[in-house]
Amino acid sequence: MDPLRIALIGYGTVGRDVVAWLASHRDECAERAGRPIDVVRIAVADPDRPRPVPAPFTPLVDGDAAGLCRDPDVDLVVELAGGVEGPEEWIALALESGKDVVTANKAVLATRGDALFDRARQHGRALLHEASVAAAIPVLQVLEHGLPAGPVDRVTAILNGTSNRILERLAEGVPFDAAVAEAQRDGFAEADPSLDLSGWDAAHKLALLARIVLGTSVPLDGLRVEGIERVEPLDLAFGAHHGWVLKSLAQLRRTSEGCSLGVGPRWIDSGDALATVHDEDNALLLEGEPFGRLVLQGKGAGGAPTAGSVVADILRAARGERGVPPTTGESPCILDPGEDPVRHYVRFRVKDRPGVLAHCAGVLADEEVSIASVEQPEGQDAARVPVFIITHPVPTTRLDRALAKLHPDEFLSEEPLRIPIDRSCDRPSGATGGSAPWPE
Amino acid sequence: MDPLRIALIGYGTVGRDVVAWLASHRDECAERAGRPIDVVRIAVADPDRPRPVPAPFTPLVDGDAAGLCRDPDVDLVVELAGGVEGPEEWIALALESGKDVVTANKAVLATRGDALFDRARQHGRALLHEASVAAAIPVLQVLEHGLPAGPVDRVTAILNGTSNRILERLAEGVPFDAAVAEAQRDGFAEADPSLDLSGWDAAHKLALLARIVLGTSVPLDGLRVEGIERVEPLDLAFGAHHGWVLKSLAQLRRTSEGCSLGVGPRWIDSGDALATVHDEDNALLLEGEPFGRLVLQGKGAGGAPTAGSVVADILRAARGERGVPPTTGESPCILDPGEDPVRHYVRFRVKDRPGVLAHCAGVLADEEVSIASVEQPEGQDAARVPVFIITHPVPTTRLDRALAKLHPDEFLSEEPLRIPIDRSCDRPSGATGGSAPWPE
Repeated sequence: MDPLRIALIGYGTVGRDVVAWLASHRDECAERAGRPIDVVRIAVADPDRPRPVPAPFTPLVDGDAAGLCRDPDVDLVVELAGGVEGPEEWIALALESGKDVVTANKAVLATRGDALFDRARQHGRALLHEASVAAAIPVLQVLEHGLPAGPVDRVTAILNGTSNRILERLAEGVPFDAAVAEAQRDGFAEADPSLDLSGWDAAHKLALLARIVLGTSVPLDGLRVEGIERVEPLDLAFGAHHGWVLKSLAQLRRTSEGCSLGVGPRWIDSGDALATVHDEDNALLLEGEPFGRLVLQGKGAGGAPTAGSVVADILRAARGERGVPPTTGESPCILDPGEDPVRHYVRFRVKDRPGVLAHCAGVLADEEVSIASVEQPEGQDAARVPVFIITHPVPTTRLDRALAKLHPDEFLSEEPLRIPIDRSCDRPSGATGGSAPWPE
Repeated sequence: MDPLRIALIGYGTVGRDVVAWLASHRDECAERAGRPIDVVRIAVADPDRPRPVPAPFTPLVDGDAAGLCRDPDVDLVVELAGGVEGPEEWIALALESGKDVVTANKAVLATRGDALFDRARQHGRALLHEASVAAAIPVLQVLEHGLPAGPVDRVTAILNGTSNRILERLAEGVPFDAAVAEAQRDGFAEADPSLDLSGWDAAHKLALLARIVLGTSVPLDGLRVEGIERVEPLDLAFGAHHGWVLKSLAQLRRTSEGCSLGVGPRWIDSGDALATVHDEDNALLLEGEPFGRLVLQGKGAGGAPTAGSVVADILRAARGERGVPPTTGESPCILDPGEDPVRHYVRFRVKDRPGVLAHCAGVLADEEVSIASVEQPEGQDAARVPVFIITHPVPTTRLDRALAKLHPDEFLSEEPLRIPIDRSCDRPSGATGGSAPWPE
């Protein structure tokens, strides 16, 4: 059978791993794809730098990404350049030229996906993007084909490995800035880590999941997105004392009223399936009928894991799978997850003077936020005494209205930090999981 | 498009859930399948009992399973009868009659799979069986299509929910017989639970996984299969004290020397991904290149979760997926996992008299089993004092040769129990997970 002729835009870590795999597993790939796979062309930003390409491939390597997308001798384009503007143009061009496209680029699909998926649909081409969400975890494949045609009602996911790793280091007592620097040094965080830390990287991935789960696109401004930038080791120590683990969770909830989507730090029980997601792993908990609940966990980043998903997509495209998310045409009613009443953890830093607790409690009471417990460890710096409050269930929006009135003043040394507490933490204490001793 | 006409053999919990789902999600199923799906015939053992079937289906209900398999007005047969002899005949007959088959029956495929898959291949038909392994977890789908064409080198899985639940109850201090009775009362264990407790139910599922992972069949007698029947609450209490959790694990390992397959109880670290698999959940850890490691966790039993996987298979068959595991023709060299040197936990019950430790240690030393630690809790019944030994790494086969010399005698009150300790427990203590206090 005629080989499938593929071309790559971008030849960094992932691209090299893709080509190396296709070369070293040529027979297995041909068997799975139903035809041999040849790498015939590569476009790079700096074509003069030498680019070793493993045998038996002898692709044309140049800087002409657009030309590659129009090349009639190319059947499938693998876009691994990253960024938005260039990839948007190239993906559209390739689809219009009758080629299938495989990409790992979540940013371009989360922000320009409507037009690009429409283009794929019009031209009857594949736009496969398994590697764009949770790298090595075949979650799009499971959502599209692994589950029966039932609705997925809830997605709870760890989609940003950098945040996950940093929160784990905070739990070990490493200060925030040092944990970020360490992640950068180890190659887990970008030079500018703000997309990761702010929650927006995970939000892009959640939007791509929502497109498949809901069968329609969700505007990015319909997501509540919060970062981990203000979390400190003392927050993690407090949580560990209660048997909780802090994770940055991407959550989708569908009810008869509508859908809510959000990303942000959240306490979960240490016995929860997502609590044992370590390092830069990603994980997704899918819930719905009739399958109940399904957890997928694996590598969320890295050259080889990402390349693996790209190769799996190339094989699927070779077999003729289209994989363009269906569009029902109905836009769901978008709800704010912050309207969901849950318990909250609030950490204040106060000045050690009479009346400070009465002051904070009074402001919370004004917004009808009721307090379940207050803890104040002894022996702290009198100008910045931490006070930990657990609220009874209250919508985050209402709590935030109260906290917005509490600024650094004669009582407070800094803005309070609040973190929602997942219902998994409502279990009777001691039922599952362990708790760490409270550090002195 | 012409509807896909399906027929069911067996109409118990799973069968009713399958038909109810196809009826209540008719439009979604038609969209996913590319054509409407009609239930046209059902064979049951007792056709005189009234069988309500939801509208719009009005199938012929009778006792003629073989006739249904030959019926030219049936396109696909869903075998949900259970057992081996009848299903073997019906599946073969349906395939020969040019029909696709979907089944949840692990026993017939694990014992007669070679002939049945050959039959499917000869006739170019599908023999889909996602529900036969880990009910709601689409692991066969992930192995066939979700991962690139790379080898899966290790599978570590919890495939029997009944054993998992019973081990959890033992950890809560419930005696073995009471835990089994409770599981039977709650519908999690059969009247005869021996297939579950002995490890053979999980072994059947492991053999089906091995067929896909290895691309060839593995004789069932090549598996090392051990049960949980001799585990007691005091074993779990000892493990919890060390931060370990006991799971019945199904394991496949592939190296350049060959493949080893086994099922049996094994200590894992409480911070391990499989340690938080609760109740009747199933879970699989897949390891290999280039994806690294992937964990899948979900419902391993129950009407609706199983029915969900059956429906997903029906939709796949309707789309023309064949799903017959490839056969490389090469049989792997089958190794005994008991030759793998790991640490072991050994629990003795001894008579409290001088020389007992020297006696046990001497027998172990004769087989060059070296002891890392010995613990003997105080204040126990002098005729049955528990003694816990942790060995240095040693092949299970060698340890068993030593233990075979230790029978109830003047020193021992009963046969010793030994459980391998997974390498996840070798972490430096305190790194992850908690430990429970040693009960008095």
